[in-house]
Amino acid sequence: MTLYDFADSGNGYKVRLMLSHLGTAYRYVEVDILRGESRTPEFLVKNPNGRIPVLELDDGTFLSESNAILFYLAEGSRYLPEDRLGRAHVLQWMFFEQYSHEPNVATVRFWLKHLELDEERRKRMAEKTTLGHAALSVMERHLAGRTFFVGETYSIADIALYAYTHVADEGGFDLSPYVAVGAWLERVRAQPGYVPLHPSCAELARPA
Amino acid sequence: MTLYDFADSGNGYKVRLMLSHLGTAYRYVEVDILRGESRTPEFLVKNPNGRIPVLELDDGTFLSESNAILFYLAEGSRYLPEDRLGRAHVLQWMFFEQYSHEPNVATVRFWLKHLELDEERRKRMAEKTTLGHAALSVMERHLAGRTFFVGETYSIADIALYAYTHVADEGGFDLSPYVAVGAWLERVRAQPGYVPLHPSCAELARPA
Repeated sequence: MTLYDFADSGNGYKVRLMLSHLGTAYRYVEVDILRGESRTPEFLVKNPNGRIPVLELDDGTFLSESNAILFYLAEGSRYLPEDRLGRAHVLQWMFFEQYSHEPNVATVRFWLKHLELDEERRKRMAEKTTLGHAALSVMERHLAGRTFFVGETYSIADIALYAYTHVADEGGFDLSPYVAVGAWLERVRAQPGYVPLHPSCAELARPA
Repeated sequence: MTLYDFADSGNGYKVRLMLSHLGTAYRYVEVDILRGESRTPEFLVKNPNGRIPVLELDDGTFLSESNAILFYLAEGSRYLPEDRLGRAHVLQWMFFEQYSHEPNVATVRFWLKHLELDEERRKRMAEKTTLGHAALSVMERHLAGRTFFVGETYSIADIALYAYTHVADEGGFDLSPYVAVGAWLERVRAQPGYVPLHPSCAELARPA
């Protein structure tokens, strides 16, 4: 398999973390989204929506949308519940992640780390920060008294939500009031096969 | 089952359309999101994220996120592919819908239909209109030469994308250049069990 990805992307990291848990070897191709490399005609063949990550399967099939890739990789493994309701709850949290969490927590982080903070972005950052805290609060309430998001078992719902939550501080989100979230982050880090967002591998450590 | 829903919601309509395809009877409870009824303490027990639709199963379990509900209802039916890759592609389009389509096409429609169009919204509407057309263009390119989104079979990917696409004109989106999308909309309407967004049922036809 080949993963087309941007090293600092939490969405790409979800897939890398999953592949590491599974012990699956893969080829890594860096796509510099800051230089428009995900919008070239060549890349749009892989994903017409112009976004990373994209997973290319051995038969040449392309899969996009990080959480759909996670679901594909997790089927038949311990990272996806076997029961129908469990799977639905896993998907519920993954759609929550993409709709209520990522567009706020990840976007603010991306603006602060990679883009110029013009007046327009500064104004919208306030709104996105409020919405990001709302998402974190939903997570905090759910995790109080639970070990993981669904069925007390580590699943792709946790992987999806971990990706941008554990670097939320880079978007100016103070996580210290979110005690249950903090304990959950530690439990994710303790999973066998865990790898950090930025591994020391030379090919991933590109100069800024 | 009980569906907590807002009559004009495309996200809720996805679930109604699916239940109609399946011929499943359900209780309908209207939640007026314009009056904050999805943010009451009572409703937050059903969905801590304060959004409709919510499906309550017969055992009292709550499911939220329209596309997760669709997946739950479709498992084991003709509306979800049996093969792993087919399911992944269905989910790919459903995550595309929630990330790249709904926040633009549906949000502009909601602002125009239900909210006051202040200066801030007017400015952001231009950006959302551009992004909405980008999403519609991705759909158009994919549907050229295809009958449905995945595996030439009508699935929950089509249901998810149909919901807000077929009323995109209410958000000011002219669909006439999207020929393949237009033909696909017709194919969806021809499916057995199809129901429109606004049925004539008295209990759904609330005065504006």
